[in-house]
Amino acid sequence: MILIGERINAGFKDIANAIRTKDPTAVEKWAVAQAEAGATYLDVNIGAASRDPADMAWLVEATQNVVPTPISVDSTKIEAVEAGLEALDGRACLINSTTADPEKLERLVPLAVKHDASLLGLAMDERGSPQNVDRRVENAAMVFMAAIEGGLTPDRLLLDPILMPIKFMQEQAVNVLEAIAQFTHLSDPPPHISVGLSNIGNKVAERGRVIRAFLVMAMAHGLDAAICDVCDEETIAAVATAELVMNKEIYSDSYVRAFRIKAGAKV
Amino acid sequence: MILIGERINAGFKDIANAIRTKDPTAVEKWAVAQAEAGATYLDVNIGAASRDPADMAWLVEATQNVVPTPISVDSTKIEAVEAGLEALDGRACLINSTTADPEKLERLVPLAVKHDASLLGLAMDERGSPQNVDRRVENAAMVFMAAIEGGLTPDRLLLDPILMPIKFMQEQAVNVLEAIAQFTHLSDPPPHISVGLSNIGNKVAERGRVIRAFLVMAMAHGLDAAICDVCDEETIAAVATAELVMNKEIYSDSYVRAFRIKAGAKV
Repeated sequence: MILIGERINAGFKDIANAIRTKDPTAVEKWAVAQAEAGATYLDVNIGAASRDPADMAWLVEATQNVVPTPISVDSTKIEAVEAGLEALDGRACLINSTTADPEKLERLVPLAVKHDASLLGLAMDERGSPQNVDRRVENAAMVFMAAIEGGLTPDRLLLDPILMPIKFMQEQAVNVLEAIAQFTHLSDPPPHISVGLSNIGNKVAERGRVIRAFLVMAMAHGLDAAICDVCDEETIAAVATAELVMNKEIYSDSYVRAFRIKAGAKV
Repeated sequence: MILIGERINAGFKDIANAIRTKDPTAVEKWAVAQAEAGATYLDVNIGAASRDPADMAWLVEATQNVVPTPISVDSTKIEAVEAGLEALDGRACLINSTTADPEKLERLVPLAVKHDASLLGLAMDERGSPQNVDRRVENAAMVFMAAIEGGLTPDRLLLDPILMPIKFMQEQAVNVLEAIAQFTHLSDPPPHISVGLSNIGNKVAERGRVIRAFLVMAMAHGLDAAICDVCDEETIAAVATAELVMNKEIYSDSYVRAFRIKAGAKV
């Protein structure tokens, strides 16, 4: 399972403040905490806090200064993605994200090839977020073909079917599960499949339950990556348990601990 | 979701003692507790504690004396099933269980028809427990055809793909999930699909986690019944959450409570 730590994101006040004041303390705290929790990548996102690509470079540097974890450079703006990639010290990285928009694919696929980066592709296009299974699969297939034609192998591609808040778009969760199952047929071996896990729990009273139930269901359908709260022990235990049930981790009485050790967590 | 309370089973010492001494106190306690937890059926099983069909009749009577909940008459012995059915006061019931053994089907399908009972069919045969998906589907199809030809409708049939302990047969959980998905194609609408949920957690240190992760995965594949510990609030919350994610229960902040009320639980 590819675990992408969501916390270095200017949607959180402490990170927005860090960017504004150029005080890296909060960034460093979350970089270390998520790395010690076993994150595969640390997502780095300046969000709406800044329009300046230099701020993405600063946030990437503040993160990579304290941990060796690969970085997910997360922005909808291509210039910010470029600035983040240029700031990297040569470690593995992920571009988060492209969509099925041809203009984005034309620029971001070559950028991923150039920087040896993996690429996360959202199954949405210029028309916005998909509301059914077919649109998700069409968009994912378009990203997949552009990425393969551009020189990326399926193992460097993460496809995201667009998970939505269950409180406001309840019927979409089932569509996302079905889309995940269909994404696994794009190639053999398939590309990675990822979701922004916290989205489903937006404004939900029983947030943890909903997030974890969806997570293990999605893993049973083929999900193998998630942008999520990697510091939440219950989430990590749910991932470990799902891998156990899916026969991807060998049973031991302490399989949760074994999973965390394998993920590189500090246990 | 059809929730079949597992607790009135002579595999538990208090129930074995109750049968031996004919003191119904423990039976009544679990009948009330499971009914108040929202059980759809109360499973009643004399297990290895007795070979006497009269003991099944006694256990059914001790149970139905205190609650109006439908009864699942559970025995591998046809004579015990018959005695249990004869003891019933006319309430709805379930025969638990037949297998794909033709001799059992020939006797138990007519018995279900005669008593207006539902029938639970295990996807196993004279050769024993299935070790792959195909054998599960073959056995389930054989039960399905015999039941339909004998006059049962799919909604009165529960098919069980045979869940096994993950600690000892780890690879079977994935096979059960795939079998559940295939069982849903037997008819439209499909028969019910049930598992003996506690089996997967046998001797597992993180028992609750494993049971609940499998449960929600299985529900995402089409499971709609389980013999389980209905008194475990975390299990019921997992069922409610899975139904929410699968869009079978409308979102509310108190959806777990709403689910329990709908199930007839005392809340």
